[in-house]
Amino acid sequence: MNNTQTTAHTNIALIKYWGKKDSQLRLPYNDSLSLTLDGYYTTTSTKFIDQADDQIWLNQKPAPLAFATRVQHFLDYVRQLNHSKQAILVQTDNHVPTAAGLASSASGFAALAGSLNYLFQMHLDLKTLSILARHGSGSATRSIFGGFVRWYHGHDDQSSFAEEIDGADQMPLRIISVVFSDQPKKISSTKGMQQAVSTSPFYRTWPTTVQQDLTAMLQAIKQRDLEQIGLIAQNNALAMHALNWTARPAFSYFTMDTIHLLTSLNELRQKGYLAYATIDAGPNVKVLTSTSDAAFVQQYLYQNYPQATTTFLKPGPGIKKTVL
Amino acid sequence: MNNTQTTAHTNIALIKYWGKKDSQLRLPYNDSLSLTLDGYYTTTSTKFIDQADDQIWLNQKPAPLAFATRVQHFLDYVRQLNHSKQAILVQTDNHVPTAAGLASSASGFAALAGSLNYLFQMHLDLKTLSILARHGSGSATRSIFGGFVRWYHGHDDQSSFAEEIDGADQMPLRIISVVFSDQPKKISSTKGMQQAVSTSPFYRTWPTTVQQDLTAMLQAIKQRDLEQIGLIAQNNALAMHALNWTARPAFSYFTMDTIHLLTSLNELRQKGYLAYATIDAGPNVKVLTSTSDAAFVQQYLYQNYPQATTTFLKPGPGIKKTVL
Repeated sequence: MNNTQTTAHTNIALIKYWGKKDSQLRLPYNDSLSLTLDGYYTTTSTKFIDQADDQIWLNQKPAPLAFATRVQHFLDYVRQLNHSKQAILVQTDNHVPTAAGLASSASGFAALAGSLNYLFQMHLDLKTLSILARHGSGSATRSIFGGFVRWYHGHDDQSSFAEEIDGADQMPLRIISVVFSDQPKKISSTKGMQQAVSTSPFYRTWPTTVQQDLTAMLQAIKQRDLEQIGLIAQNNALAMHALNWTARPAFSYFTMDTIHLLTSLNELRQKGYLAYATIDAGPNVKVLTSTSDAAFVQQYLYQNYPQATTTFLKPGPGIKKTVL
Repeated sequence: MNNTQTTAHTNIALIKYWGKKDSQLRLPYNDSLSLTLDGYYTTTSTKFIDQADDQIWLNQKPAPLAFATRVQHFLDYVRQLNHSKQAILVQTDNHVPTAAGLASSASGFAALAGSLNYLFQMHLDLKTLSILARHGSGSATRSIFGGFVRWYHGHDDQSSFAEEIDGADQMPLRIISVVFSDQPKKISSTKGMQQAVSTSPFYRTWPTTVQQDLTAMLQAIKQRDLEQIGLIAQNNALAMHALNWTARPAFSYFTMDTIHLLTSLNELRQKGYLAYATIDAGPNVKVLTSTSDAAFVQQYLYQNYPQATTTFLKPGPGIKKTVL
C-alpha cells in the first residue's frame, strides 16, 4: 500500500447545526448548510502498526489525551465496521491556527475518515464517507465536500449525510475571520447545545426556523444573491444564539467585542458595503463579504478592532488524497 | 363637584407584555404581571370647560402635540361612552423624571382614567377602570392597582383587565433603576412589538413561554421566594428581547452598558447577592434585589457604573383620589 495523505478543509455553517437528536449517532435536529474554506485544513495519514496500542500524533507530537481519546473512539468504530483489531498510527497536522477561530474537528475528522477509507480499502463514495466522518464530529460531515454543503439531518445513520450544492466557485464571496480571543470556550458546543435544547422555550421553533432559512438560502445560492446569502446567514446565526440567551440559565458566547462588531457591520451595510456576520460557539465573528468590498471591509475592521486578528478566506475544496 | 386630583404610580413588568393582538383595543397576545412602584407617579385633575376645544396641560405648560393628541383620543373615547360633547381641561403632572427610565404613559393614562371616572360620575369599579385605562396605554391597565398586578390578556374589551395579586407588601423586595440613557428610544414599543410579532420566528412560542413563566411567577409570589421571582423575571425579559434580536431585520434596545451590567449582576449573584435584571424597550435596567442586599448592590452599581443614574424604589400603591 502506498503511503497517502488525506487533506480536508474547515467549514463554517451559514445555516447552523445546534442540537443533537441522537448524541450517539450525532444526528442533528435539523439540516445545516456550510461553506468549506480554503487556507485552513488538516492533513492526515494512517497506517497499520504491529503494536498493542494505537499511536496518535498531532503536529509531530504525541497528541494531548482528550484529542487522542476522541480519535481512538473513532478508530474503534472504523475497526469494528471492518472486523479488524489492528493498531493504527495516526499522523495528523492541523493547518488551522487557533487564532483563526475555526474549529479543527471538522477538517480533522473529515481527513481522518478519508484516510481510514483508503487504509481499510473501504471504497466509500463521498456521501458514505460523510456519514463515516459524522461519527467523529458533526461538522466533519460537511468538510468532505467543497463550496456550499448541505447536511441532511436524517432519521438514522444512513440518512444523515452531506451533499455539495453548486455555486460557490461562480460567486465573488469572501469571508473575513475576526478573532478576538483564542481562549478555549467556557461552554463546549456539545454542552451548549444540550442546555439550549432542554431549556430554551424557543427551541421547539428552531427546526422550523432552520427549514425556512434553508429554503431561502438554497434559493439565494441558486440566484447567486450574495446580499441574501449574507442576510439569511446572519439571521440564522442570531436565532441560534438567541436559543442560548433564552436557555435557563441563560448563557452567551458573545463578548462586548462581538456585540460591538455586529453594530459596526450594520454601519458598514448602511454605507453600502456587503458585510454580514455569522458566529459559532465563541466570541469570534466571520464576516461574509464580496470580492469587491473585501479590501475596504478588512481595512475598516483592522482600524476599528486593532486587538483582533483578521484573516481573509475564500471558498475551499473538498477532501483529497495525495500519494506521498 | 369637588375639585379632585387622581394619583397613579408607574409599574414595571416582571412578565412582559410584548405584542398586540388587537391594536385598536390594545389587546395583548399574552397575560403580563407587573410590580407597581412607589416614588414615581402622575397626578391628574380634569374638569369640564365651556370652550370649543380641550385644553391639555402637562407639568404646568401646554402639552406637546404628540402627548396632547394621544390624550385627546382618549378623551374622545370617554366622551363617546358617556354621550358627551363637552370640552375638558386636563391638568397633569408627571413626577416621573425621564432619568428614572420609567414610562410615564402607564401612570399617566391610569391617573387620567381615574380622574375621568369621577368627572363623568361613571362609578367604575377598579377592574372596569383598568379596562378603561387600557384604551389609553397597555401598561396603564396595570397601574390602576398596587403591588403585584396581573393583566389578563382576554379576547375582547371586557375580558382584558388587571387584578391585584397579594403579597408585595409582605415581601422585602426592592428595585434599583439603573439609567444609562434618558434619550428617547429609537424604536417605539409599538413599532418594536409589531416587528417582533410579524417577523421573529420565535414569536409563535412566546405566548406559551409567558404562560409557563406566569404560572411559575404566581407560585413564587405565593411562596414569597424572592430569588425565584427575580430569576423568572430575568428569564422572561431575556426571552422578550430575544424576540427583537431574532426579528428580521434584527434590532435591539440593548447597548454595551446593558450587556455589561447583565454580566455584573451575574457576578453579584455568584457572590451570594440577590440581583436580577428586567429590561424594557430601552438600554436601562431595573435590578430586583432584597432589602438586605439593596445597599450593597446599589453601592456596587454606583462604583462600577458612575455614568449611570441609580434610583432606589419600593413596591407602590394603587390609584387614589385626593379631594383638593
